[in-house]
Amino acid sequence: MLPVKYTLKKTDGKARLGEIETPHGKIQTPIFMPVGTQATVKTMTPEELKEIKAEIILSNTYHLFLRPGDELIAKAGGLHKFMHWDRPILTDSGGFQVFSLGALRKITEEGVKFNSHIDGRKLFISPEKSIEIQNNLGSDIMMAFDECPPYPAEYEYVKQSLHRTTRWAKRCIDTNKHKDRQGLFGIVQGGVHEDLRDISLEELMQYEDEFSGFAIGGLSVGEPKEHMYRILDYITPKLPENKPRYLMGVGEPLDILEAVSQGIDMMDCVLPSRIGRHGTVFTRTGKLVVKNAKYKEDFTPIDEECDCYVCKNYTRGYIRHLFKANELLGMRLATYHNLHFLIKMMDEIREAIAEDRFYEYKENFIKKYTGEK
Amino acid sequence: MLPVKYTLKKTDGKARLGEIETPHGKIQTPIFMPVGTQATVKTMTPEELKEIKAEIILSNTYHLFLRPGDELIAKAGGLHKFMHWDRPILTDSGGFQVFSLGALRKITEEGVKFNSHIDGRKLFISPEKSIEIQNNLGSDIMMAFDECPPYPAEYEYVKQSLHRTTRWAKRCIDTNKHKDRQGLFGIVQGGVHEDLRDISLEELMQYEDEFSGFAIGGLSVGEPKEHMYRILDYITPKLPENKPRYLMGVGEPLDILEAVSQGIDMMDCVLPSRIGRHGTVFTRTGKLVVKNAKYKEDFTPIDEECDCYVCKNYTRGYIRHLFKANELLGMRLATYHNLHFLIKMMDEIREAIAEDRFYEYKENFIKKYTGEK
Repeated sequence: MLPVKYTLKKTDGKARLGEIETPHGKIQTPIFMPVGTQATVKTMTPEELKEIKAEIILSNTYHLFLRPGDELIAKAGGLHKFMHWDRPILTDSGGFQVFSLGALRKITEEGVKFNSHIDGRKLFISPEKSIEIQNNLGSDIMMAFDECPPYPAEYEYVKQSLHRTTRWAKRCIDTNKHKDRQGLFGIVQGGVHEDLRDISLEELMQYEDEFSGFAIGGLSVGEPKEHMYRILDYITPKLPENKPRYLMGVGEPLDILEAVSQGIDMMDCVLPSRIGRHGTVFTRTGKLVVKNAKYKEDFTPIDEECDCYVCKNYTRGYIRHLFKANELLGMRLATYHNLHFLIKMMDEIREAIAEDRFYEYKENFIKKYTGEK
Repeated sequence: MLPVKYTLKKTDGKARLGEIETPHGKIQTPIFMPVGTQATVKTMTPEELKEIKAEIILSNTYHLFLRPGDELIAKAGGLHKFMHWDRPILTDSGGFQVFSLGALRKITEEGVKFNSHIDGRKLFISPEKSIEIQNNLGSDIMMAFDECPPYPAEYEYVKQSLHRTTRWAKRCIDTNKHKDRQGLFGIVQGGVHEDLRDISLEELMQYEDEFSGFAIGGLSVGEPKEHMYRILDYITPKLPENKPRYLMGVGEPLDILEAVSQGIDMMDCVLPSRIGRHGTVFTRTGKLVVKNAKYKEDFTPIDEECDCYVCKNYTRGYIRHLFKANELLGMRLATYHNLHFLIKMMDEIREAIAEDRFYEYKENFIKKYTGEK
């Protein structure tokens, strides 16, 4: 029995309404997962995450391996206890961050050698090491250690790389010490090539029974949107129906809508918190740079239609002041609002799917958000 | 009728238990006031301040005059509304900050010319301007614009300066447009000289009926502690019994205890939040640098005896990790704990005065805090 179970409740076109059961509770899909890279969703407390109805967060294996170290977190009783978060956690494999180091890393069949971005220490992560770290962290959902090629990449390279990702996936499965309480997701690679996506999926399906879910990796890495949408359209419906489908690294409202319309169940991205910390906030009519001078004497909320704590109690003018004065509360409020915005949006998306009007919802949202007539 | 009223409820030796009524509600004294320099208590929301039972905060006239400007705050509906804090606010006069600019300012009888520390703009604050700004901010308690000489300073200079402070106090009284809803405190200067303190107080007492309270300025500005304690001992009991007594710029636990034992009712200081943001926290057995390596694997709370949100839910090891990883949540948690520590301490102090055991409380606190046997 896998520790992570998916129940498909209903479809509306290709969009799926579902529920995922994990060792730390159930989550409703489609879902957006806030990112807590270093065992904290930047600027937020777990209580605030619950206030905005976050059901699951993501944390990063690479960062926690480097600092404070996965063994320290195991001693603290695991990541949930360490960071005071009792709901589900998904950890990535560390692969994406390691590959992003560029010249600082070297890939072999065995794994990846790299230098720490913090102190230059020489380190090594293999599929076995990645799972060992994730076992120490104790996340509910672990990701297989994959290679995520950059965009653009040679066809032949992407092909060789996806074969290695399959071999690494098998080694991840064999390493997992906590098969009863930590689910493992396989990651479909293949870049922007339909045929390679097919090969990757087919190879991973050998281990279908060992995977609690499937992710689509290698998108949202710099490729033009039409490629991303084309691949999503092509491969998502081919993923097993009875398991969650996770699109990695996506958090732009329009991308979320597209992903859901192709049958994606889970997404994550640092975007809402990162742009928030730099003074950009979501509204129903598009993004807004609240720290701009034009909001100096604007005593209306960030978004008139929003019912979050920030919009109920603070004005654009005040938040702008906080950013101009380098006050941390500005980052807190913008992050809070942005995460609330996406989580609320997912709520509405689920409701729309339940009522067979997701595509209408999507169209209306896009019209308003982009200002199209 | 003055808009700020003090009721002395009880004394224990020279220590006073009281209540101050302001246009935004009552506060219990002795009290510690967290500092919200730029219309925010750094890293905290007003709800969190209420959670730790803060009853009044201080905000800074100089900073708000410069950014975002007091006229903008008036347009926003006043400082309370601007920053979403509905309890009492005390504003300083801007004097202390302006004088701290050193070479960047020039003092005349008229007021002080200075260059903004933000953009170098040439600016001018006079007693009239200070009150005009504070009227725009709409604080419950305003401070008269005084000169706070540095330590050390020539006796003759301190003497001339206190005379000017008296003349300026009169101009402040005459300028206040909101006598019905903004109380004004006079500030006793005179440095570390008993005779000059007497002169300052005597001069200010000409306007006793116009002042809602009296502050002791010019202490905790770098002078040795024994001078501060000597002057406190000397001048505090001479302040009018029926008005609040405010010691400016004091927030060290041991100084607080000393001040209360001399009959001080109100104190403020950036210390608890500032040291918190740099990783130092209060405990009953003294301060502790939580970001130090020795706390890496310490999975106990900051202070075993503390019942605050931080100590109930997080460990030293986790908070250390947050500081090492430059995560803002670390600053939030340390600030929260430190402000809670002082406010809780004031709670206990009031209880001890009520039960005629303040001096016993003080002795026990000091023994434990300093590790004396």
